[in-house]
Amino acid sequence: MVIADKVLSIQFQKTAFLLPENSGYVGELEVVDIGMELSDNLENIERMTLENDGMRRQLRPRPRYAHKGTFGHGLLVAGCDRMPGAAVLAAKAAMRGGIGKLTVHSVKSVCQTLAITLPEAIHHLDDNEQYVSRIDWNSLPENINAVALGPGLGTQKQTVAVMKDILDTVKTPLVIDADALNMLAENKTWLAFLPPYSILTPHFAEFERLAGKPSDDFDRLERAKQFAQRYTVILVLKGHHTVITLPDGRQFFNTTGNAGMATAGSGDVLTGQILSLLAQGYPPEHAAMLGVFLHGAAGDAYARDNDPRTLIASDLPEYFSNGILAMKNDEWR
Amino acid sequence: MVIADKVLSIQFQKTAFLLPENSGYVGELEVVDIGMELSDNLENIERMTLENDGMRRQLRPRPRYAHKGTFGHGLLVAGCDRMPGAAVLAAKAAMRGGIGKLTVHSVKSVCQTLAITLPEAIHHLDDNEQYVSRIDWNSLPENINAVALGPGLGTQKQTVAVMKDILDTVKTPLVIDADALNMLAENKTWLAFLPPYSILTPHFAEFERLAGKPSDDFDRLERAKQFAQRYTVILVLKGHHTVITLPDGRQFFNTTGNAGMATAGSGDVLTGQILSLLAQGYPPEHAAMLGVFLHGAAGDAYARDNDPRTLIASDLPEYFSNGILAMKNDEWR
Amino acid sequence: MVIADKVLSIQFQKTAFLLPENSGYVGELEVVDIGMELSDNLENIERMTLENDGMRRQLRPRPRYAHKGTFGHGLLVAGCDRMPGAAVLAAKAAMRGGIGKLTVHSVKSVCQTLAITLPEAIHHLDDNEQYVSRIDWNSLPENINAVALGPGLGTQKQTVAVMKDILDTVKTPLVIDADALNMLAENKTWLAFLPPYSILTPHFAEFERLAGKPSDDFDRLERAKQFAQRYTVILVLKGHHTVITLPDGRQFFNTTGNAGMATAGSGDVLTGQILSLLAQGYPPEHAAMLGVFLHGAAGDAYARDNDPRTLIASDLPEYFSNGILAMKNDEWR
Amino acid sequence: MVIADKVLSIQFQKTAFLLPENSGYVGELEVVDIGMELSDNLENIERMTLENDGMRRQLRPRPRYAHKGTFGHGLLVAGCDRMPGAAVLAAKAAMRGGIGKLTVHSVKSVCQTLAITLPEAIHHLDDNEQYVSRIDWNSLPENINAVALGPGLGTQKQTVAVMKDILDTVKTPLVIDADALNMLAENKTWLAFLPPYSILTPHFAEFERLAGKPSDDFDRLERAKQFAQRYTVILVLKGHHTVITLPDGRQFFNTTGNAGMATAGSGDVLTGQILSLLAQGYPPEHAAMLGVFLHGAAGDAYARDNDPRTLIASDLPEYFSNGILAMKNDEWR
Repeated sequence: MVIADKVLSIQFQKTAFLLPENSGYVGELEVVDIGMELSDNLENIERMTLENDGMRRQLRPRPRYAHKGTFGHGLLVAGCDRMPGAAVLAAKAAMRGGIGKLTVHSVKSVCQTLAITLPEAIHHLDDNEQYVSRIDWNSLPENINAVALGPGLGTQKQTVAVMKDILDTVKTPLVIDADALNMLAENKTWLAFLPPYSILTPHFAEFERLAGKPSDDFDRLERAKQFAQRYTVILVLKGHHTVITLPDGRQFFNTTGNAGMATAGSGDVLTGQILSLLAQGYPPEHAAMLGVFLHGAAGDAYARDNDPRTLIASDLPEYFSNGILAMKNDEWR
Repeated sequence: MVIADKVLSIQFQKTAFLLPENSGYVGELEVVDIGMELSDNLENIERMTLENDGMRRQLRPRPRYAHKGTFGHGLLVAGCDRMPGAAVLAAKAAMRGGIGKLTVHSVKSVCQTLAITLPEAIHHLDDNEQYVSRIDWNSLPENINAVALGPGLGTQKQTVAVMKDILDTVKTPLVIDADALNMLAENKTWLAFLPPYSILTPHFAEFERLAGKPSDDFDRLERAKQFAQRYTVILVLKGHHTVITLPDGRQFFNTTGNAGMATAGSGDVLTGQILSLLAQGYPPEHAAMLGVFLHGAAGDAYARDNDPRTLIASDLPEYFSNGILAMKNDEWR
Repeated sequence: MVIADKVLSIQFQKTAFLLPENSGYVGELEVVDIGMELSDNLENIERMTLENDGMRRQLRPRPRYAHKGTFGHGLLVAGCDRMPGAAVLAAKAAMRGGIGKLTVHSVKSVCQTLAITLPEAIHHLDDNEQYVSRIDWNSLPENINAVALGPGLGTQKQTVAVMKDILDTVKTPLVIDADALNMLAENKTWLAFLPPYSILTPHFAEFERLAGKPSDDFDRLERAKQFAQRYTVILVLKGHHTVITLPDGRQFFNTTGNAGMATAGSGDVLTGQILSLLAQGYPPEHAAMLGVFLHGAAGDAYARDNDPRTLIASDLPEYFSNGILAMKNDEWR
Repeated sequence: MVIADKVLSIQFQKTAFLLPENSGYVGELEVVDIGMELSDNLENIERMTLENDGMRRQLRPRPRYAHKGTFGHGLLVAGCDRMPGAAVLAAKAAMRGGIGKLTVHSVKSVCQTLAITLPEAIHHLDDNEQYVSRIDWNSLPENINAVALGPGLGTQKQTVAVMKDILDTVKTPLVIDADALNMLAENKTWLAFLPPYSILTPHFAEFERLAGKPSDDFDRLERAKQFAQRYTVILVLKGHHTVITLPDGRQFFNTTGNAGMATAGSGDVLTGQILSLLAQGYPPEHAAMLGVFLHGAAGDAYARDNDPRTLIASDLPEYFSNGILAMKNDEWR
């Protein structure tokens, strides 16, 4: 067994260098440019890293003659009386991510918290004060064009019924996180009903509940591929290098982010960020890739100004701007 | 049909270049100074852009021997239990806009939110906990000199009666926004009772409900002119280039602002800003023009420090100061 | 009648130049140094301006081997259900002003607001949820060494009784502001029971209720002098140049501050600031003078970084530090 | 009796120079380096100062392939209806200190406050709305690996029973502060049941209640040594130079911090900071020493940017990052 001090990787990082299990064997990693051309058309390459050049091109200019309708109207179904924070973090991220309007369907206490911390959010109150129990679709704004669910929802029986109702009702791609993933894991037959190109954002433990325990890191990647292909979904497998798997099986390793982001609520922010991009009209693949990349870029921007140990999830939406500016100026790497 | 790469406009921007429908045909726009003198007396020119030189002159110095009474006492009638955020945004903008005192008439939950987020505001509580149902004029401070209504009010039957009561009671120009505009659209006979020089701030959809669907952008401008003249009001038609129409029919295109401001709550901030200027004693025309110009200048100041995609409405009052400083230093354009 | 473009004042500003009524006649004011020596011993001079040199000397270094007890424990009696903001502003100012501990006696809703906005404050809850109705002295911490009352208290009958109870119980100098001043004006016999060297902080209208309507600005100064001497109190008469009158009749014109501070809640901040200094052991005269000077210095520090129009009272405690640093570095004038 | 203007101390500060009682006799203190080597192995030295070199080495890098589980899950038992602030300050410090997850067991009003001020925290609600009355261990997350208790708890009978329950249940070192110390002082037989290497953080008065009144500063140090040895605990005796006593009797004087930190809530922040380090897997001795050192370093970082008089406890977690950066860059001394 070799434990390398330094590893040279030809033209791009090989998959093996990006996996947690190998982190102990890969010392300082340097990518050596030997002049290979990487086509913009990535269709023939199975596993790639997300790089700033490509991500920056995905970032759309905001049209001048826009109004808030131009940037979409997202619905976030999140939070319960005992877990209000996750909904707040996701909502802030959605607003800071550039969405036109955000409606949050949640319980009273979450809405009271939002009134104070995010006056820009529109409230859609559940009848139940403890947990989300029913969505009255008729009273929702008509122009909602993207839906995310999961952060802080809990898994009460009535909330499970709400999730089923959403699957029956919403035909556009969903963003599914946290307790919504747990509800899916408990009701695996529902996987077949997910709108195509829905974006699921599990961490390792949540993915195991969905797709079984992998034998090693490569097997986890393989399971992710099979899962995304089988259910025609986009799988965002969160980790140090978050891996995005598209329905065609291609896999993308994220290259932004740092260990300071391994902190409670970080994932809720990502959910809000992806919802935001989806509502703004980004195709689901771009919403997932760009969301993950920007989320990490925000964390890296924080780490440039601060010691990363001190990062808390609330910092991330506040650093979206610096993360985007770093991308634009290519100062970021 | 010509799609121009570059457009030269003689001395000032022609109206056609400022309309959304033409945005696809106008490439880079350059204004060519051929030495025409624009008189300060604008009476003979029908459509003008708001420029920094003129706006800066409207901005009054704050007299040294002032006390908070010098800067007026505004009343904001806004908010309901399910929409507390709009009232908070408008109230913050009013305070940051330089008003001496602000009283907010609203429901209990809005006042509780204000206690936390804007301790400077004075509360005037409605008896109803869900929505604004009645204003007890006797218990209001006597020195109130400007009134705005609309943000987050809802359109409950009793709230509609409150609006009628305000029209019957208040003789000074009102600022009317959001749900108050919707109530007006439902009760068009009330338009005749608006105090002269009231300021209405509809976006395109709200204006359609008030004045019918225009055939094109020029027709919208024409309808705005007729509306302002007929009801002797100032119409602030919100869009990329917000257009202010005075009761004499003159129209002013705003030149500040950016697409980052196309975000929920941005309009509530404008309402608070205009109320603030009105209470400070600015004539209604100046309050409307300066309010719109400063609102956009604040957004532009945000965009100089940040990526504009990340702007949320709460940022605007915090950037009023930078917007004003940019105006003063003429750094802003 | 001469309206001067420029006024030269020999060695220091003459009183007449500092009065509001004369502000229209005094243009640009320049103080000409002709080499007169102003003694540190001010006893023989009746009216003086507060200058940075003297104020800086009053500012005590914070001893190294200090603990929070060293910096006193203040009691703030303030706020009611309908006016929670004033108590919050005064409390923040007290904490930012350097006090060791602060206990706030108030109603439940004010304490809930403080929990969110100033977790450092200790709560002492009134039994009544609407307004302050009774202070249980036995349950208060024993080490309280300074008391302020008034901001947002209201003037309910039971609150009036609490004020009387405080006058009967507290033997150290009180800070009295806002509604506490109004209660005094309604119960002028209580003036005789004020602990000597109590600090009263009326604005012009509040002072009129206490001491009658003055014929002009000079008469107001004369009434202030008589009032302070008669009741052995320190009178802080708030205005553009706030005037501090000591029990020996000497009067000091403040020279810090700006028109941006003419905004709701500014006075509540001053009350908290003076309470803070009193609790830290400053003699009442110094607490009053230094409090007023620092309050204005904070406003001036804000105005150096921002357009002063946008100042709200919450900004002032956040600028205490910059105000003090400017004093120390003498950058401030 | 000599009152020195300047004191030279050979190679390191002698204990006598660090004690409050002697502060009046020690003027400017200079440490003279005579080339003595201080071994990293401190076992033979009884009393030492904490210096940046050693503390910086204790600070662990954050591993790249980390997830939030890597950084532990702390439980904070704190707060009651009348004292919500202390729990909030401790919780913020724990999160900013780099912990992976934090669960707060407290009453409803504290949790509502946390939802607004720290959405990252997980709530574990007590059945009682006034004070902590019972912990349902079964409903707590299983991965909790560090527990702190005390800030703002109160000493209600049922809360005392909760403390006993914690002592009976938790086998890992506890962080014990504030009211938990007072409960220990009232129940001294419980001292024998403290998990070894628990960290107690009394100020002088709290320590007196635990270990009796010392005759002088040296006797206090001696009592601290005996206490730590007898109960196998780490004693953090808070003061200008906080002294950490290890179970083997060695004592460490902290060298960071300033008089601005003598303010309400400062100790609650320290409790959260130590809990954070403990949960991240630092050995209890390092958690105590590093926590105290960083707490002071944060205060010193505040004092570099601001006048230290204006420091409030909420500032400290926000300055953790600057404190750590100063340590890393050795800019700090």
